[in-house]
Amino acid sequence: MPDSAPERRIRMTVAYDGTPFHGWQVQPGQITIQSELQRAFLAITRMPIVVQGSGRTDAGVHALAQVAAFTTRSRIPIANLARAMNHLLPGAIRVTSVEEVPLAFHAQWDAKSKLYEYRIYRDEICSPFERPYVHHFPFPLDDEKVIDAAPVFEGEHDFSAFAAKDERYGPGYSQVRTIYASVARREGPRLIYRVRGSGFLKHMVRNLVGTLLEVGRGNMGKEDVRGLLQGAARSASGPTAPACGLFLVEVTY
Amino acid sequence: MPDSAPERRIRMTVAYDGTPFHGWQVQPGQITIQSELQRAFLAITRMPIVVQGSGRTDAGVHALAQVAAFTTRSRIPIANLARAMNHLLPGAIRVTSVEEVPLAFHAQWDAKSKLYEYRIYRDEICSPFERPYVHHFPFPLDDEKVIDAAPVFEGEHDFSAFAAKDERYGPGYSQVRTIYASVARREGPRLIYRVRGSGFLKHMVRNLVGTLLEVGRGNMGKEDVRGLLQGAARSASGPTAPACGLFLVEVTY
Repeated sequence: MPDSAPERRIRMTVAYDGTPFHGWQVQPGQITIQSELQRAFLAITRMPIVVQGSGRTDAGVHALAQVAAFTTRSRIPIANLARAMNHLLPGAIRVTSVEEVPLAFHAQWDAKSKLYEYRIYRDEICSPFERPYVHHFPFPLDDEKVIDAAPVFEGEHDFSAFAAKDERYGPGYSQVRTIYASVARREGPRLIYRVRGSGFLKHMVRNLVGTLLEVGRGNMGKEDVRGLLQGAARSASGPTAPACGLFLVEVTY
Repeated sequence: MPDSAPERRIRMTVAYDGTPFHGWQVQPGQITIQSELQRAFLAITRMPIVVQGSGRTDAGVHALAQVAAFTTRSRIPIANLARAMNHLLPGAIRVTSVEEVPLAFHAQWDAKSKLYEYRIYRDEICSPFERPYVHHFPFPLDDEKVIDAAPVFEGEHDFSAFAAKDERYGPGYSQVRTIYASVARREGPRLIYRVRGSGFLKHMVRNLVGTLLEVGRGNMGKEDVRGLLQGAARSASGPTAPACGLFLVEVTY
């Protein structure tokens, strides 16, 4: 085996524009963030890795600071790794920091919280430069109703009504999660929703946003939303908001 | 002829992300800004137009407010035109305003000045979200020398040393232009160059920037640049900076 040494666990922070990728997770025949990271590391060291993210992001979702970890016996110095990876990665993926962590570090199970941001663009005309990074929604919407309803999600609840079906969610899988903060506010032409929680189910943030938009459109009330938080059916909540408005902002450990 | 009425001259302000287009100018078999505007208008009114821009932008160059005009006998109300055009245009092109102007209005010849901005990104790691809109230049560069040299271009000069060859520039074509303001400054990780002038030759802003970068790298002095402003050969100045960092910001009339 080339360049072999004792096992090390390496944690990377990664920013990406999700537009050109088929999501985080490796999929046969598709270009994904995970596959690009693994390909770049292999090209540098000739040693394969399996990169473990803090969670999967859907196709089209962006990240300011996704966290990912892998184990390797490569001797490559940590100090050189970000530059070497960025040299080989497409410009839409950047490794922003690298550090060595204990071998037991798990990017998903050790995460204490995640912060997501969802950007809704409210003006009639959406700037060509923001378009890939927002959900353009110039239609009638009472922003104040969205802002008022957003904190309803805070606390520990059964979020079944906001989870897409997933092969990982078998019978008995708990869909209870804790939301620490759930806040919407207007920032210029943007209605920004930020949500921090212990963990998120598949499509959960996009379904929270889709439901808040139903509130803003007058199709649901704040109390209707509250009623969905004891394990209501997925069909009872709003549609899934588009991926392009969503950013994974931070993962804490 | 469908929907025919007296001739009107219409002026549009257009923003575009130049990344996916082969520049402004119609070219056979290529998707350009001009061709997309003409196609959208034809689809709405079934009447062809020839859109005249304030100038051509190169492939990959962006615009916050390009100005374009055309003459039509269509009866379409001005108030509806921006929305109808934006409905049919790709999201990377937006018509931001529309107004009726005198029939004699010429988007290029009537322009009094144009303002361009060029964005150089100086940090080692370039955000994936800014990458298509900057020239990433993390290499050694004395920003202060660039800032100090930028105003040398101000005034009326022969800019032959900064003009690409163009079929429009025959013998006797004057390459004298007036630069009203030429300023570089640091804004966070960005070195921003703004230049306002009476008009610009082909590749001129990108060649001014390429020359300022030579100054910042220590390959040329401010006085060398001054010496190029009496009609020196193109080969005497710096290379052409990449298109993706350039924005047409404003055209005044």
